[in-house]
This record gives sequence, structure tokens and C-alpha cells, in this order.
Amino acid sequence: MTLQEMKKKLEETLSSKRFKHSIGVMDTAVKLAKKYDEDEDKAAIAGILHDCARNIEGQKVFEFCERYGIEVNYITRLQPQLLHGPIGAALARDVYGVDDEDVIKAIDCHTTGKENMTLLDKIVFIADYIEPGRKFHGVEEIRDLAYKDLDKAILLSLENTIRHILNKGILIHPDTINARNYIIMESMK
Amino acid sequence: MTLQEMKKKLEETLSSKRFKHSIGVMDTAVKLAKKYDEDEDKAAIAGILHDCARNIEGQKVFEFCERYGIEVNYITRLQPQLLHGPIGAALARDVYGVDDEDVIKAIDCHTTGKENMTLLDKIVFIADYIEPGRKFHGVEEIRDLAYKDLDKAILLSLENTIRHILNKGILIHPDTINARNYIIMESMK
Repeated sequence: MTLQEMKKKLEETLSSKRFKHSIGVMDTAVKLAKKYDEDEDKAAIAGILHDCARNIEGQKVFEFCERYGIEVNYITRLQPQLLHGPIGAALARDVYGVDDEDVIKAIDCHTTGKENMTLLDKIVFIADYIEPGRKFHGVEEIRDLAYKDLDKAILLSLENTIRHILNKGILIHPDTINARNYIIMESMK
Repeated sequence: MTLQEMKKKLEETLSSKRFKHSIGVMDTAVKLAKKYDEDEDKAAIAGILHDCARNIEGQKVFEFCERYGIEVNYITRLQPQLLHGPIGAALARDVYGVDDEDVIKAIDCHTTGKENMTLLDKIVFIADYIEPGRKFHGVEEIRDLAYKDLDKAILLSLENTIRHILNKGILIHPDTINARNYIIMESMK
């Protein structure tokens, strides 16, 4: 599928709010790819497709996991919205015809993060957090920082997310903790 | 070894501040065991011995891990003080002659917590956090809560710990996250 065809299909699949968000993430990911010398096409495709499974809800989430062999653990059983990354990665391959493993992996981990993220993983992750539609308190600081110190911006976003989860009393995915631990370790090198 | 012999050996091994802390944890663990119908002798032994490896520092930490087959991962390599639980568990068995697996496991996980903690694990964990020598902001609230709702007290202590770690910029052990996740899941049952 061309990028144009992907956009058309997503516009039919997602709510208009989520489609607009996806365009924002794509545009931001491309800008960051330019800045950090990553492949702009990969950033565009991962950006536009990152939420391609975001409209799947309820029992259907687990049906998709079954279909694509995606492991459901004690956390994602209770918080299935965390599975839209892995399901989106499977759909990117199966429905949108993506065969680039870097793109698929970046979609896979865009919600929780993970240990040892690649540059593309990081770009998509932070683009999702800072795209122009995001309005939360403190977003401007991280938006600026993303173009100056990518890892620092991701660290701040992960820590905001962890504090937010603590305040909400919901489960924390260990991948989010691993993502933060690895960024800190990289900064020590 | 009798409890009296353990105390004598610990008094010779630990600093006077840490020995006093260990007595505080023992006394608190026994009180909590009474309250929650746990074995008071197990609570006393796990309480007095929980920090029996706390005086081991520097390269010696890794030597003890080698000797006792304790796994060192990317987190404990950088924050070896997290290993005083597992090393303490090994010393409890090897040096203090403890053969009760419940006691050994409670010592093992007293610093980080872990998924699916037993009642004894929880008692030693929270006793370490609230013993009379602890003076930090908010300790009174958790000290009271520990006798009313043990899981709630542990949840608060874990969340305080995670916030503290975020503020310090150090690594978070996934076992601490697993401990919190499991307590939340138990509360949903």
C-alpha cells in the first residue's frame, strides 16, 4: 500500500479525532527523523499507522491477539488498551502490507516503550506524546526538548506517564520501567 | 542458632544504627504477625535477620553473589545495594542456620518486593518501612494503616518508593512494579 492508500484506509477506520492525531504523529515523526537522520519514509509509515488498531475494543482485542499469536499477560488482560501497539504492528503487516521490521517494531512498542529502543522506536514514541494535538500541562517543554535531546524528552515523558499511572491507581507495564531504566543507563555511557 | 544468638552475631556485624533498626523491624513484624495471625517466630527471625547482609559493600557484594549463585542483572549491577535482600537470604541459611523457606523468602524480597507476596513477605516488607526508627514525612499515616489494611499500607509504601526513585533519577527494579501490580490486582478480587 502507498502512504496515500494507508491514509485513506485509516480515515475510514478511525474516528476523525484519532485520524487527525495520526496525521500529527506522522508529521512530527518525519520532522524528528530529519533532525536525527533517521529514514523519513519509515518514520512517516510508522507514524501514520501507529494507532491503526486503536478502534478495536472489548472482547475483539483478545480475538485479534488470538489470531495473531500476541501474548496476553496479567496486565494486558486487565488493561487491554495496552495491546493496541502489538495488534497495530500485526495489522500493519497483514492489512497495510508493511514488511519493514523496523517500522513494525516501532508500532509494536509505541504505547509502553521497551528496553533498548531504536532511534525509530524513540521517534514514534515521542511523536505520539508531543504531536500538535497534545495539550496537557508541560507538553511545550517536552516538545522543545525532543528536538534538542531525544533521550531526555523520552525520559521526561516516561516519568510523567509513570506518575500519571500512580495517581490513577492502575497497573504499570514493566516495559515502561525497562524503557526508562535503559534510557538512564544509556545516559551513563 | 537461637534468636538470642542471632542478635548477638548481628550486633557484632552491623553498625549500631542498623542493629537498632533490625530490632525495630523485628518488634514491628511480631506485632503485625499477632494482628494478622501469622507465625510470630517466623516474623521475629525474618525481622531481625532482614538486613544481615547490609554491611557488605563494593566488590564484595558481587563476590557473595558468585558464591551463592545469585543472579546479577543490569539493574543490580548498577545498584548493588538492591542485592542485600538475596544475599541476606543466603546468609540466613548458611550462616544463621535458618531452614524455614518462608523466612528465607521474606528476607530475599524485603527491599524490592515482588509479585504475589505472602503474608510473611508483606509483614517484613512493611515492618522495614514503618519501624519506630523511621522518621520520613507521611510515615505516621502508613504506620497506622499497616494495622488496619496491610495491602493498602504496602501499596502506599511502594508508590512512595517509586516516586522517590523517579525524583532521584535512579533505576526502578521491575519486582517493585510487579509487587504494586499484584497488590492492585488482589484488591480487585
